[in-house]
Amino acid sequence: MRWIRYSTATGPAYGILEDKRIWEVNGNPFTNYERTKKSIPLESVEVLIPVEPRTFYCVGLNYVNHIKDPSRIPPKPDIGYRANNALTAHKQPVIIPADANKIHYEGELVVVIGKKARNLSMENALSCVLGYTIGNDVSERNWQKEDRTFWRAKNSDTFKPMGPWIETEVDFSTMETSVRVNGTVTTQFRTADMLFSVEHFIAAMTRYITLYPGDIIWMGTDGVSPDLKPGDIVDVEISGIGTLTSTFVAADKNTLSNEQQRAAGAL
Amino acid sequence: MRWIRYSTATGPAYGILEDKRIWEVNGNPFTNYERTKKSIPLESVEVLIPVEPRTFYCVGLNYVNHIKDPSRIPPKPDIGYRANNALTAHKQPVIIPADANKIHYEGELVVVIGKKARNLSMENALSCVLGYTIGNDVSERNWQKEDRTFWRAKNSDTFKPMGPWIETEVDFSTMETSVRVNGTVTTQFRTADMLFSVEHFIAAMTRYITLYPGDIIWMGTDGVSPDLKPGDIVDVEISGIGTLTSTFVAADKNTLSNEQQRAAGAL
Repeated sequence: MRWIRYSTATGPAYGILEDKRIWEVNGNPFTNYERTKKSIPLESVEVLIPVEPRTFYCVGLNYVNHIKDPSRIPPKPDIGYRANNALTAHKQPVIIPADANKIHYEGELVVVIGKKARNLSMENALSCVLGYTIGNDVSERNWQKEDRTFWRAKNSDTFKPMGPWIETEVDFSTMETSVRVNGTVTTQFRTADMLFSVEHFIAAMTRYITLYPGDIIWMGTDGVSPDLKPGDIVDVEISGIGTLTSTFVAADKNTLSNEQQRAAGAL
Repeated sequence: MRWIRYSTATGPAYGILEDKRIWEVNGNPFTNYERTKKSIPLESVEVLIPVEPRTFYCVGLNYVNHIKDPSRIPPKPDIGYRANNALTAHKQPVIIPADANKIHYEGELVVVIGKKARNLSMENALSCVLGYTIGNDVSERNWQKEDRTFWRAKNSDTFKPMGPWIETEVDFSTMETSVRVNGTVTTQFRTADMLFSVEHFIAAMTRYITLYPGDIIWMGTDGVSPDLKPGDIVDVEISGIGTLTSTFVAADKNTLSNEQQRAAGAL
């Protein structure tokens, strides 16, 4: 089952996606919902990020090929964080700041928490999960090295594309992530090659932390991105879920939306 | 002016605190509000955290006496993050996990953002601020050293007391933070001794990041905490704002609330 979040005249709404049609629901997947008999075509709506998370968790290093220095392979699942300001939806632009120099993608599986959870075991860890979506953990590698934290390297506005929807049924054993730049596959890896699984992270985290409905956990990436430039189109496809597409644009005034220009004081 | 958030039969509400009475309002301080002619005594309500932040920013090192190794004094204002699961209100317990060994307080000034902001200057940085509250950045120092991230060292459930209310008018030049353990002052420092000011952080951050209403920025701490033990009562007082009080308790089943026991599967 696929949950999609989209824009309507009265605000964001959740619907159920089937064969490129969205079935409207009353309610949402986190509390209660009732499917209606009304549907609209997928291409008629603006797709929104699938959830505004309460807490945005993200695994730093979770695939061996992404870790250049073997001494940095983590011995245990220590979760990290990203920031909500950076989230942006499927098909929305990633805006490259004027002073950014080395922009990389990181295609990631995203876990969406559906139920409040504490002290789960490896065996029942997935009982709190609503489903899975796709994230692109866009990073500026020079800032990542220079700064004390990842604030601008990984959390500049629009650096966290997420979507296009939440798939509730997946198979980790066969799942693959493929990243394409302008249509050419540049990275490909298997979810089963994670150092620490989704179950492992949820069990470890909930020993100290309560997970809440709407929390998200980005599960890390494998491989190395080429350097990206304005105009590049990046697709992150995860088998069984879908494809998250972002166009990278330079941050000059012509490419900023009116809202962004207003926020920046230019209008 | 003081904004207080408290529990009512119909959910969380904001009110205006004057002389230990809460004046009820329609609306909230982030959008619109209208003050009513109805008031209730402060002691009759359960105080809630002053805001559920969209993004929870936190400065790591911002006072020289807190930094043991001078080579670690940061050359620029790189902001960090904390997590919403850890927030807890004034007068609520801080629960020390069973395997925690070295628990410290960190008394901090908290900035509450009131308006959406991008590209602010040092001069107009404070134009986006609604007001100020108090935070206690509770930390487990062994985990802080051992783990790759601060996830459990600083973000275990209840490790982030915040409150008791938001004060809109403050004077940084005379402001002092005092921390008391069981009534004895153990740390005292001046807000004016920050390495990077509130204005400096907001100007730096909004070059890359949009701040949103309800975002919070914890401004770091000075001095060194003694090791805390179950039963300790910690007051963080900031002159001109108020006092945030927390009792530290051990995480055995007798000290967990019913809700926490249910979350942990014990009920």
